[in-house]
Amino acid sequence: MSQPYDRIFNFSAGPCTLPVEVLEEARDGMLNWNGSGMGVMEMSHRGKVFDGIFQQTKAWLKELAGVPDNYQVLFLQGGATFQNTMVPMNLRGEGQTADYVVTGAWGKKSHEAAALLGPTNKAFDAKAEGYRSVPDLEAIPISPSSAYLHFTSNETIQGVEFFTDPVVSVPLVCDMSSDILSRPFDVSRYGLIYAGAQKNMGPAGVTLVIVREDLLQRTPANMQPMLDLKLMAENDSMYNTPPCWSIYMCGLVYKWMLKEGGLTVFRDRNREKASVIYRAIDESEGFFKGHADPSARSVMNVTFTLPSEELTEAFLKGAKAHQLDGLKGHRSVGGCRASIYNAFPLEGCEVLAGYMRDFAAKNG
Amino acid sequence: MSQPYDRIFNFSAGPCTLPVEVLEEARDGMLNWNGSGMGVMEMSHRGKVFDGIFQQTKAWLKELAGVPDNYQVLFLQGGATFQNTMVPMNLRGEGQTADYVVTGAWGKKSHEAAALLGPTNKAFDAKAEGYRSVPDLEAIPISPSSAYLHFTSNETIQGVEFFTDPVVSVPLVCDMSSDILSRPFDVSRYGLIYAGAQKNMGPAGVTLVIVREDLLQRTPANMQPMLDLKLMAENDSMYNTPPCWSIYMCGLVYKWMLKEGGLTVFRDRNREKASVIYRAIDESEGFFKGHADPSARSVMNVTFTLPSEELTEAFLKGAKAHQLDGLKGHRSVGGCRASIYNAFPLEGCEVLAGYMRDFAAKNG
Repeated sequence: MSQPYDRIFNFSAGPCTLPVEVLEEARDGMLNWNGSGMGVMEMSHRGKVFDGIFQQTKAWLKELAGVPDNYQVLFLQGGATFQNTMVPMNLRGEGQTADYVVTGAWGKKSHEAAALLGPTNKAFDAKAEGYRSVPDLEAIPISPSSAYLHFTSNETIQGVEFFTDPVVSVPLVCDMSSDILSRPFDVSRYGLIYAGAQKNMGPAGVTLVIVREDLLQRTPANMQPMLDLKLMAENDSMYNTPPCWSIYMCGLVYKWMLKEGGLTVFRDRNREKASVIYRAIDESEGFFKGHADPSARSVMNVTFTLPSEELTEAFLKGAKAHQLDGLKGHRSVGGCRASIYNAFPLEGCEVLAGYMRDFAAKNG
Repeated sequence: MSQPYDRIFNFSAGPCTLPVEVLEEARDGMLNWNGSGMGVMEMSHRGKVFDGIFQQTKAWLKELAGVPDNYQVLFLQGGATFQNTMVPMNLRGEGQTADYVVTGAWGKKSHEAAALLGPTNKAFDAKAEGYRSVPDLEAIPISPSSAYLHFTSNETIQGVEFFTDPVVSVPLVCDMSSDILSRPFDVSRYGLIYAGAQKNMGPAGVTLVIVREDLLQRTPANMQPMLDLKLMAENDSMYNTPPCWSIYMCGLVYKWMLKEGGLTVFRDRNREKASVIYRAIDESEGFFKGHADPSARSVMNVTFTLPSEELTEAFLKGAKAHQLDGLKGHRSVGGCRASIYNAFPLEGCEVLAGYMRDFAAKNG
């Protein structure tokens, strides 16, 4: 059974599969968007046409995610990695520390960047058990002088995920890069949310930041412009030329998600997709082993291992014949990983699960 | 006479017109690039397919610009504005100052960002005469402890441009955002060149940095990852997810420029295009006034004024009827500006010049 445009099932951890109809719309407007006489990549970012696209993109995101009025929505450059620098530089004041919850490789990087810049406290670290579970964030002790509590809602490399929006006593900062918009979430519980676009929202090169307005007052004076969150907000993400095309693509994805029914629909779809693959793991009688504890199994990144490196290699090689690509685990942990973000089709999960069963039967 | 795809003549200062055949190629591979089964926006940046695109893009740029082997080519995020921060943080050592030549609004911003971070010297400032000319860089006194001399090869807002690659006694750093690849240039005369892509190279969201390898040793220890030029170079621009699509688009532009004949061809075309408009200014008997001194007239951005604000408004309004768009001068200086980068067609300059003559005849 072939996919439209002879596309493969692309399990890449990001950048990753985008919706076919979003790509078609982008393609069709490439040389002349909506009768403007120019493509979106060619428009002045300060012109009326692009401003319309930009404001619409923000409006769709706000509707989709239910962003309250006291939050600003920014589209910045530099990826989530750059936010690991911007967040402590803007939110952590003199004499304050910042609490970090580390449940995988990305949280570790966030903590390291913040620690280079000033005081931090590792409020929780799941390293000793190999990053397999997530703690109850509401039960974690927070430092007395903490500026914020930072956590990573989904760890793409280890495949562990938080599923609730906790209430804590300091502003909650969340790197949601790899599971934002995968389920309904309560923005009002967060002080600042950031997310690289290239998993659930669009192409690489743009980072969504949703920030509660009062926190913008924390930005110190005399910051470098591109590190100044307040300046970015005051200029509506247009202090300098923004990544216009990537923003436009995010807008098309938001529009598509609204049309499909919004976050509740995607939560249900994502749960079903993930359960198809986790079931293949659990029913393999130990041939496949899931990395994460069942309580923290990511709905976005299903991580698992095979009995040996040889079998892993054979599995990955055979997958290509089924048009299944991008299943190799991250170089830091090995094994396999199936990344199945919002735009990834259920059918691909079913094909993978079928292949897993066949492979286990032949090699188990 | 209508343009292909009913496109307008888009004089935007950037983002701006891209070549039609480049856009067509991008469009045609949108859902399945080169039989890979995925579009370029959907590929893992660490996979073989995108790596091939990335290495080819660098190779095309090196061929086009004649980049010597002791230089590294990087594709980063944050625009030229971010380089205004990265350059002093990486190249200016303890006890050193940095010299800045200010010939317009962008050079002023570069200087300001560097001055916030440490010692600087304004080696030249053309503000008093309204940023109309450029100095002889080889004759400018350089500070004894200078880490580098920074200049802006083309000022988009004022429309003044340098046309030579000077030899100076310290590493030369150049913001070439708005005229890179518009003429042959000698990379070996520079220590570091940076350029936002959105004028002559591609869409917004990626910044080209060409840096002489020995300068990478200047990066201090314990930098924040995204500010660490050495780290970016060591990771071949892939420390974190790069702006893949924007890089791919730059590659298509480089390929197109090589096919058209390279930088000498574009220099000649650009000179011809600019001369068509400057001639309309000079022959208008003072109705149109060029902002720049004739010796420093930018080949990329032709800036001019009309006798009154009313006439300027009428001129801009009438331009739209000729499919001429984006001619309004930058908000900080007013008047008009025709930005005519590499991909802008000669025909558009001729239509503009004809319209200028008609308008002057009717209103002069």
